Amino acid sequence: MTSPSPGYSITIRVEVPADVTATSALTSAVGQAGGAVTALDVVESRPTGLVVDVTCDTTGEEHAEQITQAITAIPGASVRNVSDRTFLLHLGGKIEVVPKVPLKHRDDLARAYTPGVARVSMAIAEHPEDARQLTIKRNTVAVVTDGSAVLGLGNIGAAAALPVMEGKAALFKQFGGVDAWPVCLDTQDTDLLVEIVRAMAPVYGGINLEDISAPRCFEIEARLRELLDIPVFHDDQHGTAVVVLAALTNALRVVGKRIEDVRIVVSGVGAAGNAIIRLLHAQGAGEIIGCGRTGSVHAGQVGLDQYRGWIAEHTNTARLEGSLREVLVGADVFIGVSAPNLLTGDDIATMAPDAIVFALANPVPEVDPVAAGAHAAVVATGRSDYPNQINNVLVFPGFFRGLLDAGVSDITDEMMVAAATAIADRVEDDQLNATYIVPSVFDATVAPAVAAAVRATAGPPRHRSHARP
Amino acid sequence: MTSPSPGYSITIRVEVPADVTATSALTSAVGQAGGAVTALDVVESRPTGLVVDVTCDTTGEEHAEQITQAITAIPGASVRNVSDRTFLLHLGGKIEVVPKVPLKHRDDLARAYTPGVARVSMAIAEHPEDARQLTIKRNTVAVVTDGSAVLGLGNIGAAAALPVMEGKAALFKQFGGVDAWPVCLDTQDTDLLVEIVRAMAPVYGGINLEDISAPRCFEIEARLRELLDIPVFHDDQHGTAVVVLAALTNALRVVGKRIEDVRIVVSGVGAAGNAIIRLLHAQGAGEIIGCGRTGSVHAGQVGLDQYRGWIAEHTNTARLEGSLREVLVGADVFIGVSAPNLLTGDDIATMAPDAIVFALANPVPEVDPVAAGAHAAVVATGRSDYPNQINNVLVFPGFFRGLLDAGVSDITDEMMVAAATAIADRVEDDQLNATYIVPSVFDATVAPAVAAAVRATAGPPRHRSHARP
Repeated sequence: MTSPSPGYSITIRVEVPADVTATSALTSAVGQAGGAVTALDVVESRPTGLVVDVTCDTTGEEHAEQITQAITAIPGASVRNVSDRTFLLHLGGKIEVVPKVPLKHRDDLARAYTPGVARVSMAIAEHPEDARQLTIKRNTVAVVTDGSAVLGLGNIGAAAALPVMEGKAALFKQFGGVDAWPVCLDTQDTDLLVEIVRAMAPVYGGINLEDISAPRCFEIEARLRELLDIPVFHDDQHGTAVVVLAALTNALRVVGKRIEDVRIVVSGVGAAGNAIIRLLHAQGAGEIIGCGRTGSVHAGQVGLDQYRGWIAEHTNTARLEGSLREVLVGADVFIGVSAPNLLTGDDIATMAPDAIVFALANPVPEVDPVAAGAHAAVVATGRSDYPNQINNVLVFPGFFRGLLDAGVSDITDEMMVAAATAIADRVEDDQLNATYIVPSVFDATVAPAVAAAVRATAGPPRHRSHARP
Repeated sequence: MTSPSPGYSITIRVEVPADVTATSALTSAVGQAGGAVTALDVVESRPTGLVVDVTCDTTGEEHAEQITQAITAIPGASVRNVSDRTFLLHLGGKIEVVPKVPLKHRDDLARAYTPGVARVSMAIAEHPEDARQLTIKRNTVAVVTDGSAVLGLGNIGAAAALPVMEGKAALFKQFGGVDAWPVCLDTQDTDLLVEIVRAMAPVYGGINLEDISAPRCFEIEARLRELLDIPVFHDDQHGTAVVVLAALTNALRVVGKRIEDVRIVVSGVGAAGNAIIRLLHAQGAGEIIGCGRTGSVHAGQVGLDQYRGWIAEHTNTARLEGSLREVLVGADVFIGVSAPNLLTGDDIATMAPDAIVFALANPVPEVDPVAAGAHAAVVATGRSDYPNQINNVLVFPGFFRGLLDAGVSDITDEMMVAAATAIADRVEDDQLNATYIVPSVFDATVAPAVAAAVRATAGPPRHRSHARP
């Protein structure tokens, strides 16, 4: 669970004596301390000594400190500086805004700015629908958060959420050619948040809600879908549901089961769990049991909010009551979008034969994937350092590419299913196996395939998907 | 007043017989119709004929139509298509959002996105001041409008304002290296607008208000300056005031008068006029008379709002009453930020000897600059097709560059004066004359000089500039 990761990579600048063993002493010190050396660059060489940049992956800050001490302990070595590559990369932020038009000459200015721009503005004032052609609107998405549920970090607020939203915007452009802009709002008032997004919408062709806590996210999404004529997507819900459906489709192919026949336990009934359950239900999954912190959601429970009420009403027809561990016995599929270390390998052993385990809590999954793998046929996580990384980046860039190209105002279940199918289909029959159920996030064919699927499904506006009651 | 402009440039694709006079017939037809040919490109050549793209500046849509008809009337000529270069340039918008970091490899993703980004978010959650280093905040400005007073077009709304704000964002980057983002808000409720800008501020290092109608703009600016710890600039006010002060400084050098001694008539007491009057007053201008639609503003008038009340109290000590035309008699300086064609050359002739005329209404000035030039020593406009173009683009990119670099939270009068001086100083003594009082908007030394002046002036936060009562 704690293998060194490039997300915790450091570079140690160290002075060592000019000695044939100097660099090998560095690599072995790092290795013995449990780090993984990824680069060794000699930045300065003198008769008496060398200055070397040792770059290595670590498991975290404490580990980085241990590795630095191990290097300091080498006789004659002197550490000058330790830099954290992740922090270095973030200096000054991860995105920028650049002109697409020439501005080198007076005539350029006359067209892009005054007086020429006045005619373009008047054209839009007279024909508002022209904004899609004559402005950035047709290619631009707002990545909106209030910082209330950021990654697994919780309610850390708008400013602290910005690095995540910048990363998202960078991925939107890199994989989907979509211009995305971070909107981090210093308010967690639902009414105000809805009103702000409504007011700022003229600039955007779509809204991507992100890391907003449940159940507020359901209401915000539903109200915005009513108010706006551009699509509203909540990545934590819909992005996750699509990529999970894609992965499950292929996992079921691997084990030779049909979705209609399997019993699925979903751990977590927040934003992601809710959307997963609804999409799997719409796909005719055999039996679904949602589990919150207090165990299974079932009909007859008192005090359920309307979202859990929907789950109680539409799933768990056998009214199974009990803890996650208890209802997991005999299940075919486990989908975790909840919390770290809820289960052990022994729990997975109680599942049906050829079990499928998606332990997606990040960075620490619901169950150790190695322990799960001893008992399950297919294991997937959200992590990049295990096989089968289930990552929303397979979905949102292509999904919005398709939405923007089609110019639709509503997101439908058909679009989400089509996108999931497109992702699943990127794994060819001869590639499919228990360790390869989803394409790589760097497979450049995925986003265009998802976009094409969304475009093909997008007819005239149809019923709204997942509109909340 | 109606010379052809590149802001109204068209390209006419026309088929003509293969004839030695074919292209000359095209140029002469355009010329006789009053257009200015800027390019002639043969795009196809066959034994029987040519296809030619004729690009020419026009004075507007009607004129473009006349020129097209003139070409159609050439024997054998057949117009295939007429395209408007300004509209072509605007297709898909003028700015884009691009990643600044590599995203080619799994390790890149681990640093820029999960899991690495979580550490950066936590660092900001623990030390909010680190947001300036670790996010786009330190280089990013919001260009905020409600579309209530766009250029000279009036209240055309948020969507129609977007092309102007995109142009502004493009100029911010081109001239100042500042990342600027258009925020076009579909609300003209002052309270809501203030609340929205407050809520979205975590992403930004500064706020540039733009094209918001007076007197709402004064209240919005003042309230935001109180609420936010980042600088709030209203370009229509402060940008205009700075560039006018710069131009006036040099114009006074040309005519050999001192600001303390001159009588200045300002036509227009909206956003721009108000800020100009306040800045000139702070600079000790001898006498200032503000004129609204109903004539001079003076003490003793009833029904003045607080902003005109301030003008009445602090200017026009002689309590001159009368129309713009009447109070202009004997004045040294006319500054117009109001409406087209308010004055004639004869009116300018009534001013003091060596008069200075800044007729800045766009695109049609308060007085024909040629007619004014017959009587005034120095004439300037907002237009690029006359000498002395007074354009805010000389100010805002460098001004915000300086504000962001200095990390200040407040804008002071000293900064504005320093910026004006820096701009004026870009015209060397041996360059200065009546037709060259401001540097070119393409003078690449202007923005760095303005930025340096703002940085030098920015000490620890001082009194707020132009805070409204």
